[in-house]
Amino acid sequence: MSFSAADREFMARALELARRGLYTATPNPRVGCVIVRDGTVIGEGWHEMAGRPHAEINALADVVRKVGTPRALPSGRVGGTVRGATVYVTLEPCSHHGRTPPCADALIDAGVTRVVAAMRDPNPLVAGEGLARLELAGIRVDSGLMEDEARELNIGFVSRMTRGRPWLRLKVAASLDGKTALNNGRSQWITGPEARRDAHAWRARSCAMFTGIGTVRDDDPRLTVRDVDGIDTPRQPLRVVVDSRLEISLDAAILADGHALVACAVEQPEKAAQLRARGVDVLALPNAVGKVDLPALLTELGRRGINEVMAEAGFRLNGSLLREGLVDELLIYQAPLLLGDKARGMFDLPELEDLAGARRLEVLERHAFGADLFLRARLPE
Amino acid sequence: MSFSAADREFMARALELARRGLYTATPNPRVGCVIVRDGTVIGEGWHEMAGRPHAEINALADVVRKVGTPRALPSGRVGGTVRGATVYVTLEPCSHHGRTPPCADALIDAGVTRVVAAMRDPNPLVAGEGLARLELAGIRVDSGLMEDEARELNIGFVSRMTRGRPWLRLKVAASLDGKTALNNGRSQWITGPEARRDAHAWRARSCAMFTGIGTVRDDDPRLTVRDVDGIDTPRQPLRVVVDSRLEISLDAAILADGHALVACAVEQPEKAAQLRARGVDVLALPNAVGKVDLPALLTELGRRGINEVMAEAGFRLNGSLLREGLVDELLIYQAPLLLGDKARGMFDLPELEDLAGARRLEVLERHAFGADLFLRARLPE
Repeated sequence: MSFSAADREFMARALELARRGLYTATPNPRVGCVIVRDGTVIGEGWHEMAGRPHAEINALADVVRKVGTPRALPSGRVGGTVRGATVYVTLEPCSHHGRTPPCADALIDAGVTRVVAAMRDPNPLVAGEGLARLELAGIRVDSGLMEDEARELNIGFVSRMTRGRPWLRLKVAASLDGKTALNNGRSQWITGPEARRDAHAWRARSCAMFTGIGTVRDDDPRLTVRDVDGIDTPRQPLRVVVDSRLEISLDAAILADGHALVACAVEQPEKAAQLRARGVDVLALPNAVGKVDLPALLTELGRRGINEVMAEAGFRLNGSLLREGLVDELLIYQAPLLLGDKARGMFDLPELEDLAGARRLEVLERHAFGADLFLRARLPE
Repeated sequence: MSFSAADREFMARALELARRGLYTATPNPRVGCVIVRDGTVIGEGWHEMAGRPHAEINALADVVRKVGTPRALPSGRVGGTVRGATVYVTLEPCSHHGRTPPCADALIDAGVTRVVAAMRDPNPLVAGEGLARLELAGIRVDSGLMEDEARELNIGFVSRMTRGRPWLRLKVAASLDGKTALNNGRSQWITGPEARRDAHAWRARSCAMFTGIGTVRDDDPRLTVRDVDGIDTPRQPLRVVVDSRLEISLDAAILADGHALVACAVEQPEKAAQLRARGVDVLALPNAVGKVDLPALLTELGRRGINEVMAEAGFRLNGSLLREGLVDELLIYQAPLLLGDKARGMFDLPELEDLAGARRLEVLERHAFGADLFLRARLPE
């Protein structure tokens, strides 16, 4: 498939629109749509949040606002002025009745001539059905334009659809010598305000924050989203605490708003009841060695529609997540400090005998935030 | 003092010329000189190495080559066509007879009208003498143009003149989690070829490499300069090994060319004699606790004309250098690897009770070298 420069330009715009759903679309994917006739954009739309119309429907409605009332169609849907148009959409239009009617049908009814999709539906059970439905109706369908960008934007949704678990980002704030906390547990404000603000933007796009009982005890963090530009009242992520022995204090700040899940290995009925009385979800997920079964916990989060998880934990839970292959990406904020060898490290990992055994990461981006350095890296599959 | 845009342009050129002496001028400073008449550069010079002419003399000779034979002067020196010119020089012209006659006299004899110096001589015993001599001869003297750049270029020379010891850069190649070697001591090739090549350029400008017996035992490095663009036969830095008990093997690669100094706390006459027979210098510099007196060692290196020292050592010697306040700059090469908490760290430092006690660095530059990140940071005085 070869695409024209105009195709690229319109898809880039559709991706830009899709990004508007960054903080709100979950558990749905972030999707943008541009409708073009005679080389001119006549409508734009994006998906804001579950329960509200999909990007394609919003774009069709936008055509009406911009170009005028549509002709009445046999189906009663929006259309007419869209006849002969090309639709650019960042994800294959749906073909199933969910909370909204199928977008593929709406595009067929509207009489569009061509649909360009950045990527197919990542759900292997329905992938290709929407595009096939359009083709069956005589619409020219081209797929795969700017697919990498589209996939990146919905990497958590793709992960949930293809692997049954969320995309997990592990955030670490460390000194130049790789230390995250003093030996006495003190760790707050290692990095500066710009870095912390950026970390909050990563929280804002996440559906869940993930931490361990050690961090709750040492730092008593809220792990809420605060101070993100352009968000007045942010959607707060689910706070997930790994707490094998259910030792968490009922007064822990992370439980204050009740939007929390505590995963334990042994459910202690009395403590669990107290937590549940405060609106906190308690889940016993033991593994064979009496700890929390982390892969099972992530699968459970996936089942609950969690696309992106951000972990902010101590070096033990960080190490466990890495060892079990559950970390997809590292977000490392590095402050120009030296804390010395006796301070706490980043990852509790088994000793290596050979450098060939070291985990090699793919660095995706590096930025300076004030005096701190931010580095995003991906772990090999 | 206010300088014109033309002044800046000519001084920038003089600094560019001075940089040509980066790898060769030591123990002398890197100095560049531009001679301008009627807004046109009529001569350029730089100082290549000790024993060869200073930058000003080379620039005067360049005028002869470019503009023609000078008029005979009473002193018999080069001059004539230089009469009325302005001289831009990155360091105050010397006023003393060293291996060459004083440059201030040569400029006076040549009949220049104005001398612009980037900085005064950092040697407190002679600072200002050269400029005063020029002024006494009726030459207009302006000093301080682009002084920061000039000072940076000769930071080691300045350090030696003002503190009596060299400027010390500590180089560390580490993983993302701040580890420099596996627990079994394996550490080679953590970073990639581009980073290693850059580290060799830092070696090339250094007068001495500095390491400890632990690194010699674990890695048996040569610590020579190799693979630096534009240098065919590099000047090799003095290799300095801190080896309290004089345990170094006579076959250690670092001693192979004999251009080495082993600093011990207790001189063992037989071993010392064997080392000296191979051309290796042995120096006993014990401190009160029976280790090598590191400040005294650096002062001794300064006394020997060493301007810039680059340390590549293990986490113990790194920690000692930091604790004793002897590290001026860190060169950190960070590879996108995870080695885990059990691997060896960067710096052996005392445990901190409070984050306010952490050493905060000033990051001067960050670059990517292939997949690795390079970071240069300065420690507060």
